[in-house]
Amino acid sequence: MASHDSVVSPAGILLDLDGTVFRGNELIEGAREAIHTLREMGKKIVFLSNRGNISRAMCRKKLLGAGIDADVNDIVLSSSVTAAFLKNHYRFSKVWVLGEQGLVDELRLAGVQQAKVPKEADWLVISLHETLTYEDLNQAFQAASGGARIIATNKDRSFPNEDGNAIDVAGMIGAIEASAQAKTELVVGKPSWLMAEAACTAMGLSAHECMIIGDSIESDIAMGKLYGMKSVLVLTGSAKPGEQRLYSPDYVLESIKDVTKLAEEGILL
Amino acid sequence: MASHDSVVSPAGILLDLDGTVFRGNELIEGAREAIHTLREMGKKIVFLSNRGNISRAMCRKKLLGAGIDADVNDIVLSSSVTAAFLKNHYRFSKVWVLGEQGLVDELRLAGVQQAKVPKEADWLVISLHETLTYEDLNQAFQAASGGARIIATNKDRSFPNEDGNAIDVAGMIGAIEASAQAKTELVVGKPSWLMAEAACTAMGLSAHECMIIGDSIESDIAMGKLYGMKSVLVLTGSAKPGEQRLYSPDYVLESIKDVTKLAEEGILL
Repeated sequence: MASHDSVVSPAGILLDLDGTVFRGNELIEGAREAIHTLREMGKKIVFLSNRGNISRAMCRKKLLGAGIDADVNDIVLSSSVTAAFLKNHYRFSKVWVLGEQGLVDELRLAGVQQAKVPKEADWLVISLHETLTYEDLNQAFQAASGGARIIATNKDRSFPNEDGNAIDVAGMIGAIEASAQAKTELVVGKPSWLMAEAACTAMGLSAHECMIIGDSIESDIAMGKLYGMKSVLVLTGSAKPGEQRLYSPDYVLESIKDVTKLAEEGILL
Repeated sequence: MASHDSVVSPAGILLDLDGTVFRGNELIEGAREAIHTLREMGKKIVFLSNRGNISRAMCRKKLLGAGIDADVNDIVLSSSVTAAFLKNHYRFSKVWVLGEQGLVDELRLAGVQQAKVPKEADWLVISLHETLTYEDLNQAFQAASGGARIIATNKDRSFPNEDGNAIDVAGMIGAIEASAQAKTELVVGKPSWLMAEAACTAMGLSAHECMIIGDSIESDIAMGKLYGMKSVLVLTGSAKPGEQRLYSPDYVLESIKDVTKLAEEGILL
């Protein structure tokens, strides 16, 4: 039997934030209008980000501040997905956090137990920590040296901000792994199944009904390919024009503002 | 011809500091008296430490505060040896420092040029930084991402302090290597030839005329073996009794306070 590839126009959009909608705290030109256009077309949108240092509530506030409406249930962050994973699979574990308030908020919201001292932690959760001090690193080292297993919200090496690129979670992971001679067991962020499934579940759609739009070949485009979603690379973030990697996007746009071109080409109907 | 091993009683002692003379800021019991005894026996003493975050002047002050006389020229630190290396071999280079004031002091004293911004650095010097912040890490990341070569004062994973063990330079190196995808070219601290030669030069002695006393098999005992010095392991720091490693010490003492036993045994005359 000949297989018949039915062309399905995506019903759901997984929309990356850093480098796609925002650059640092700055809204990328035309992003608000593009999101409006997608919604006018009846598309469901989930905002997703490997940022593990903010909560969905904080993210929602940032989106609202930029004039973009979003429900917390339409936001999927590595912080909230990490919290859900620990709650679902390790409900008797205590965690120590090398990270920020947003992550702690999500862990509390999920009901994950926090260790009182590093030595009693079953898990060390490592995330971006932009106000990190030596003592924070040292406490995480104590947890890992004491046998805590390591889970990381993501392992991005750098993230784009107003000044270019800044050191990201890979740096924090590197510090702990090298000093405590330990290895990270699980990285939650894109392109993991955890993020993909959380986004699809939030929309009530299957992966093949979704399209991911993002600036990172390693996380966004890879996730699209790995889970059978159409993928669109935008060039407003980490990827450079013409860059070749293991995974190629289905489409490339200069910017999210050009999303109307996908409609013009009949890719999004 | 039969070779004749002449037994030479060491004329110079390389005395490690952290874990041997001090534990954190606390003087190890009997250390002052042991140093006095060695000097009474006519031994030259060089104090040496992989600590790259303090200057020799700061170290001298700490020793004096504990009632131990020392000239700055009798102190060999990875900070001062790093500064001398850069001055001697890369005099036109500019450096960026991920480290503390003591290291900066030694670099200035040696006349090493400091980069004004991370991006203009030819070398990134990584050392222990007990007051490290995210911004310090990020600037070091900028330097390494911009192409600066990496030199580390040492690569100890942890150091003993009053509370047990604390995260050391390996953590800072791990952070930068993982995020900037760069590798450290040179590690200055023990057991490197740079530290061994600096200590011998300070005493005007050859390595075979020296004995090293320290608490670390990986740095102190390894250095003794690699350069043909007699070596004495003390058990007041990182090494555990009976611990086996590639390098074995010639002698083991419970503590520096038992140094008189070396005289009683005819090892130090």
